[in-house]
Amino acid sequence: MIATGLELIDDPELRSSARLLRADADPAEVAARVAWSVLVEPGDGVAGALLQALGAVQALRTALGESGLVPSGVTAPRPLAEALARWRPRASTRAVRDAMLAAHSVGARLLLPGDELWPDGLDDLEVHQPVLLWARGDVDVLRAETAAAIVGARAATGYGESTAAELAGDLATGGTLIASGGAYGIDGAAHRAALGVGGATAAFLAGGVDRAYPIGHQQLFDRIRQSGVVLSEVPCGSAPTKWRFLARNRLIAAATMATVVVEAGWRSGTLNTAGHAASLARPIGAVPGPITSPASAGCHRLLREYDAVCVTSAQEVRELWGEQDVTARPSTAPDHDRTRLFDAMSARSPRDPADIARRSGLSVERVRSLLGVLALEGAVAQREDGWVRSD
Amino acid sequence: MIATGLELIDDPELRSSARLLRADADPAEVAARVAWSVLVEPGDGVAGALLQALGAVQALRTALGESGLVPSGVTAPRPLAEALARWRPRASTRAVRDAMLAAHSVGARLLLPGDELWPDGLDDLEVHQPVLLWARGDVDVLRAETAAAIVGARAATGYGESTAAELAGDLATGGTLIASGGAYGIDGAAHRAALGVGGATAAFLAGGVDRAYPIGHQQLFDRIRQSGVVLSEVPCGSAPTKWRFLARNRLIAAATMATVVVEAGWRSGTLNTAGHAASLARPIGAVPGPITSPASAGCHRLLREYDAVCVTSAQEVRELWGEQDVTARPSTAPDHDRTRLFDAMSARSPRDPADIARRSGLSVERVRSLLGVLALEGAVAQREDGWVRSD
Repeated sequence: MIATGLELIDDPELRSSARLLRADADPAEVAARVAWSVLVEPGDGVAGALLQALGAVQALRTALGESGLVPSGVTAPRPLAEALARWRPRASTRAVRDAMLAAHSVGARLLLPGDELWPDGLDDLEVHQPVLLWARGDVDVLRAETAAAIVGARAATGYGESTAAELAGDLATGGTLIASGGAYGIDGAAHRAALGVGGATAAFLAGGVDRAYPIGHQQLFDRIRQSGVVLSEVPCGSAPTKWRFLARNRLIAAATMATVVVEAGWRSGTLNTAGHAASLARPIGAVPGPITSPASAGCHRLLREYDAVCVTSAQEVRELWGEQDVTARPSTAPDHDRTRLFDAMSARSPRDPADIARRSGLSVERVRSLLGVLALEGAVAQREDGWVRSD
Repeated sequence: MIATGLELIDDPELRSSARLLRADADPAEVAARVAWSVLVEPGDGVAGALLQALGAVQALRTALGESGLVPSGVTAPRPLAEALARWRPRASTRAVRDAMLAAHSVGARLLLPGDELWPDGLDDLEVHQPVLLWARGDVDVLRAETAAAIVGARAATGYGESTAAELAGDLATGGTLIASGGAYGIDGAAHRAALGVGGATAAFLAGGVDRAYPIGHQQLFDRIRQSGVVLSEVPCGSAPTKWRFLARNRLIAAATMATVVVEAGWRSGTLNTAGHAASLARPIGAVPGPITSPASAGCHRLLREYDAVCVTSAQEVRELWGEQDVTARPSTAPDHDRTRLFDAMSARSPRDPADIARRSGLSVERVRSLLGVLALEGAVAQREDGWVRSD
């Protein structure tokens, strides 16, 4: 019942399915990667290290026992031994073939590390990077030069949803890819706003790309597939378990240049995405809200505990990755002496420089010189009996 | 018409007024300090340096020309020469006497640096510290061990005022002195809340303590004087000019352990108080609000540009100066394997460890060991045909 690595790579039916999925890639590599995606839960660091060290094909042979890394008679290191025990129950040729066929039947494309469209940022996950991505829709949206994660609570308020929509719409209009998790609330508002302005959006799912979860977003996912992309690292047919939601969050954080949390409860799962962003040294933006709103409590927590940046506009999101506002002007420092001079003058009662000096605490000379400058600007005027402020 | 330093110190009438104000202090020192408060605008750094170097009495003699620092025939350094030109127009024995009499007539107490009740923090202003403080009300409230500035916009919203009231009320209940500026909006709400819980509050005014500004707060100032204190560094009768508002803000920041801005517009004067707090290395707290509210824009700016801390409760304000929440419990990290085990189990369909292992991606051994532990906790149960989750 348990297949060996050799069977998973060399099975002729698997090979032809692999060719069907990716005519441009080595079928052994494709078969091995799909096999790995079936064997492991997302983010399995031992598998990641093995793939990094040996490549997908050789790692599979090793893990499932025909060759080299752990010669017979030698005890495997403990983490590897435990991992082998985790993977073996899932080593089924049929499960791997089913994953390929299911993907093919819904028209899902297979993205592999190193592909032109593979999101660069995922490499930062190192041994926790996904072994592949299944994609449905227009994968070309992944070519966007900038990408922001706009995420947040399912139980969002009207304030949160409209804020998410405004940020996502503005960013998408500027060419930024809007990545989110396809959930109710903030995620949905962000995807919809990006679609609404004809922008790019990517939904990272915790289950297979053939499943609409939540089911109420079936129509939204249909729309995303038309002009955006739906992505997942787990095989078609996989249920979106709690673990896979947590693991999926790391993809959203890694595939984008900044993660913006619009609303989140104090213990929201969204904070997990922010935590991934923090551990990847990606900037985190948090949208503030009323302190009386539990839906903003998680955002305020991010500002306090995670060193998140307070963001209130799309421009402030772009500044998270270093884009400057070209329309911003440097602020000019206030002129203290002018303030004191104006304080000491009246618009109605003319005063002489000595009187203005006494009232302002400035010297008579300073008062005279300031009055001269300000008269040129029209801010003060000289009358027969003294100086007045031009209000 | 312009008095000399000697006249301002040795005038017999000034000396007797000085004794009336502070029987326990050296009348020459009292007269000199009051004279300085008349001569300079708040925060005059040249005067501050002179007072620090020579003491108030000798500094006055020097500044107004009978002795030592600038011997006749020697040119004074430029900043000092300019300062002398600023101060001389105000050097009037009558003005100094009037300041003393006006204070006496409204029962204002004179506080001097080094006094037991002199707010320690003011020393951090160095050469910009006030030369004295006039106080009306119960100066004993200044003995509070902790003090917070709760400040903000005059044009506050209902959200801002109720937040200011909640923070100030909670802090004052815990024994913290609430300092603010006596203005409409946030300041008034903070003072009122402190009074409402029988707590300590101090209003720092930009004009003289004999003036109610704004006039609509006459009644509030009356109440503050009954159980709190009204303070100012400028002589009675002084108008609250724009410059004096800016200078007054440094007192609020310096006299407290943290400055909390509840609401402020993008260019609010309240940001000036926060700027003083920052330059004094006092922590700044900013209360977030809806990004759609212009009254919160300044708070969000503080979070972004001034490294302010997001505060949403009185406890979080206390944490600004290092008080820990004794009721807070350390959070426990989530157990990933447990999450995956529960994901793979059902509350209704019993499953055997091999099935759970395959679904969870955990090894059969790990599943068996976790099930054992969780069964003891009552989180899972073993039936005849397998294991179920106890939901």
